[in-house]
Amino acid sequence: MRTPERTDMSDPAAPPVIDLNADLGEGFGRWQLTDDGALLSVVTSANVACGFHAGDPSTMRRVCELAAERGVVIGAQVSYRDLAGFGRRAMDVPADELADEITYQIGALEVFARAAGARVGYVKPHGALYNRCVHDEEQAAAVVAGIRAAGGALPVLGLPGSRLHRAAEGAGLPVIGEAFADRAYTAEGTLVPRREPGAVVHDPDEVVKRALGMARDRTVTAIDGRGIAITARSLCLHGDTPGAAGLARRVRSELTAAGVHIRSFVRAAGSAA
Amino acid sequence: MRTPERTDMSDPAAPPVIDLNADLGEGFGRWQLTDDGALLSVVTSANVACGFHAGDPSTMRRVCELAAERGVVIGAQVSYRDLAGFGRRAMDVPADELADEITYQIGALEVFARAAGARVGYVKPHGALYNRCVHDEEQAAAVVAGIRAAGGALPVLGLPGSRLHRAAEGAGLPVIGEAFADRAYTAEGTLVPRREPGAVVHDPDEVVKRALGMARDRTVTAIDGRGIAITARSLCLHGDTPGAAGLARRVRSELTAAGVHIRSFVRAAGSAA
Amino acid sequence: MRTPERTDMSDPAAPPVIDLNADLGEGFGRWQLTDDGALLSVVTSANVACGFHAGDPSTMRRVCELAAERGVVIGAQVSYRDLAGFGRRAMDVPADELADEITYQIGALEVFARAAGARVGYVKPHGALYNRCVHDEEQAAAVVAGIRAAGGALPVLGLPGSRLHRAAEGAGLPVIGEAFADRAYTAEGTLVPRREPGAVVHDPDEVVKRALGMARDRTVTAIDGRGIAITARSLCLHGDTPGAAGLARRVRSELTAAGVHIRSFVRAAGSAA
Amino acid sequence: MRTPERTDMSDPAAPPVIDLNADLGEGFGRWQLTDDGALLSVVTSANVACGFHAGDPSTMRRVCELAAERGVVIGAQVSYRDLAGFGRRAMDVPADELADEITYQIGALEVFARAAGARVGYVKPHGALYNRCVHDEEQAAAVVAGIRAAGGALPVLGLPGSRLHRAAEGAGLPVIGEAFADRAYTAEGTLVPRREPGAVVHDPDEVVKRALGMARDRTVTAIDGRGIAITARSLCLHGDTPGAAGLARRVRSELTAAGVHIRSFVRAAGSAA
Repeated sequence: MRTPERTDMSDPAAPPVIDLNADLGEGFGRWQLTDDGALLSVVTSANVACGFHAGDPSTMRRVCELAAERGVVIGAQVSYRDLAGFGRRAMDVPADELADEITYQIGALEVFARAAGARVGYVKPHGALYNRCVHDEEQAAAVVAGIRAAGGALPVLGLPGSRLHRAAEGAGLPVIGEAFADRAYTAEGTLVPRREPGAVVHDPDEVVKRALGMARDRTVTAIDGRGIAITARSLCLHGDTPGAAGLARRVRSELTAAGVHIRSFVRAAGSAA
Repeated sequence: MRTPERTDMSDPAAPPVIDLNADLGEGFGRWQLTDDGALLSVVTSANVACGFHAGDPSTMRRVCELAAERGVVIGAQVSYRDLAGFGRRAMDVPADELADEITYQIGALEVFARAAGARVGYVKPHGALYNRCVHDEEQAAAVVAGIRAAGGALPVLGLPGSRLHRAAEGAGLPVIGEAFADRAYTAEGTLVPRREPGAVVHDPDEVVKRALGMARDRTVTAIDGRGIAITARSLCLHGDTPGAAGLARRVRSELTAAGVHIRSFVRAAGSAA
Repeated sequence: MRTPERTDMSDPAAPPVIDLNADLGEGFGRWQLTDDGALLSVVTSANVACGFHAGDPSTMRRVCELAAERGVVIGAQVSYRDLAGFGRRAMDVPADELADEITYQIGALEVFARAAGARVGYVKPHGALYNRCVHDEEQAAAVVAGIRAAGGALPVLGLPGSRLHRAAEGAGLPVIGEAFADRAYTAEGTLVPRREPGAVVHDPDEVVKRALGMARDRTVTAIDGRGIAITARSLCLHGDTPGAAGLARRVRSELTAAGVHIRSFVRAAGSAA
Repeated sequence: MRTPERTDMSDPAAPPVIDLNADLGEGFGRWQLTDDGALLSVVTSANVACGFHAGDPSTMRRVCELAAERGVVIGAQVSYRDLAGFGRRAMDVPADELADEITYQIGALEVFARAAGARVGYVKPHGALYNRCVHDEEQAAAVVAGIRAAGGALPVLGLPGSRLHRAAEGAGLPVIGEAFADRAYTAEGTLVPRREPGAVVHDPDEVVKRALGMARDRTVTAIDGRGIAITARSLCLHGDTPGAAGLARRVRSELTAAGVHIRSFVRAAGSAA
């Protein structure tokens, strides 16, 4: 059994620590998307697709093997059942069905993690399910029910303050907040919706600078210029765009150079680390 | 951990013991096929569909819950990925892909079995994969590799003498042979192919009589009239035709009346039994 | 080319005419659901599943052949892409993707209709898409765009007053309203939501009585006891419950006995009729 | 209606004419594979995936629009139903099911071709189905039956001398042979199997040289050094590897420079050409 680290993020004396997570294994059969090999040299947490929006069994096995070899913690990136839409189309799935679909995906990943000598260390919803569970109480509860049915009180990686995190806390599951160095924030600390101007930060230098601010100084500049506090224990790096792996590598090296410890939020008991 | 019973089937003094298995949970979403509730009152081993030829997550959960409640051992009924063809179309799946697909299915079922307080107790291939693994060395080895990757040295339920059983034995997995009371046998002890006349026994009285012969006397009359020995430790009952559940119930009660013990070939450690 | 009949439904001198439609071909591979043979002896319009929520190619071919043989008009029962949920889970499909998915389904059915010597005569959305297009302007417009791209200005069968019908009219497509003899209506003429008590009429005698009132007298009693006008040119009969085909047959024979003409709303140019 | 050109390939006085075909639209949802825009500037025949091994509706629409705009003939690249395996795993699909699956795919593409102001001009099986239909009489006949059911006597693009071509000829469908500039040939004129050394020609200069020999001189050097005659009326260019589009462009320009006419084997009646 592993437990999330109990580092007190607000302790000013503690050395800054951050987890880096990215979506991996998002190909399907002939199709590849994420540069899994490169990203597994950078991140400490791998959100592995489980077959519902992406992720065929052979890809799942290979990503688990490589993650275990490199001491990267394996997380179940659970999704709506929607290969055609890559899990990006919200679906009104009845709560019990959704819970069972979550359980199924965790089980399917767990067997590959175990075969690689590791374990599934956390759960993170993907795409439309992630977004829906920010506000939708019923689906958030269903996802949590599905995680609980899978056993083991897995930590839930997600947006701080989301319905998903509240439901997880209510059910006794650890919650881990994440922040996005390439997304703009409102003064209230929420993400600027993608459809609004300036929502995505494209300049690599700016992304690196924001990552440093988030991880070391626990702060970021909101879209209106005000500084806001960041409590996230993980930074989400994107891996599905050209140059993404290179930028991720640069974020990591500059964080390290600035004295930030890069470490998973779970003890990777079963891994080589 | 459970282990197959070590009953010596050839010991004439031992009371006759037989396992009864049937395919269950073979619906998908809106579509239902097998009368799971009725069959779970009859069989001792439930071959549960894992989502590749049939079996949505909610059905898998419900069947596992009911099986655990009734002390029926849960088996993974693994298949080619073919919902449209119900797993009945042989596919030239490369060995490594096939192994990973098998592992995935076992993992997906295992999580529901565990949530129900039980375990996956064995593996049985479905449909075209079952038939192919009678003769195809490469696919048989791939199925065995997939079972081994899932961990736990699960017993393999299948046709006595099949390539699958030989591969399983070679890999140190227990093998359990099954017989079919509603199928005709050749004098060599193999099944008469379905396309040949007389291949399927339709008369319920005859099916019951053959089941009795197989389980109690360890013999059956081949299609040419000769008696042949039956070493199978499990009888496969069909559950997807009208009247199937009724016939299964009758087979069980007549076996019991004849002094045959109906018992799973695995100790159902995690179940209520 | 066929065109909708121009019968003036409000003309008191005209003999009462009604179309009967039902969902057909809603199996998938091994799974069967609707009693297609029986229903094709009753209805004048067959809403044929096109493969996205149900309906494999062979079933589509057989239903088209039988429909053509019996002079039943073939309609494309288009759906979200959701076999696991039988198209009953609303999905936030982007408008252009949804339009293309509709076009694809119509094309896939059209080739079987044509091979059977008939044509696709109309389009009716299925399940969650039907319900969503009652109120959702964007998806309603996308469905209409998808129908237009398929060519031929196909009539749209749906709920009178729905966004779908408004979008279809705006695009120059004929609209055909349908009514449900087994559903309760509000005084405003809308359907009582299924989750409310009394929403579904289960008593067969009552269903027949309401069908007669709708088709002959153009009226039905709302849930509050008031009579409301029915302008629908088609009655939807359900075919996926036990006894459904029998009830459908009874509705038809009692309508005929009462002097109601049972006739499709399109001239079945390509059929035997 | 379009008909294949009746150019006599063996007439030494006729100017050399060749069609160039490539697989296109082989993405699915989020996943892209082929560089459709670049290839549609090179080829005269586009083998468009129809949704069974690849090809979502929106991709199909876009490829059809672009092909029609550029006067490229649209062909239905039909496949086994196998997204997970990209249609590369042979399947024992019963003949009637396979025929219906072929018809379905052609219909689905036809509606997009028509919407773009074009037509489906030919059919070419994909991957494992292509390979199987070289030798398998039953499946070859099923593919032909599926094409015939779709109507219009579409030409069949495939391997000269294959069972598929023989079945097509027997059914009165035009057949078009294709050759591969990047594959080695035996002295008997068949392809060297991919698993044998030297089966694939990787050197771009060599590929161009072989293409020239095939199209202009109607000959190619077999793997044993002998020259063999080429009767193919189309060259298949590959589009799914890095640099593929560039090589395809080079083949076209060198063919043109050598006086070879690049022209589809069907009159693209509905296109801009």
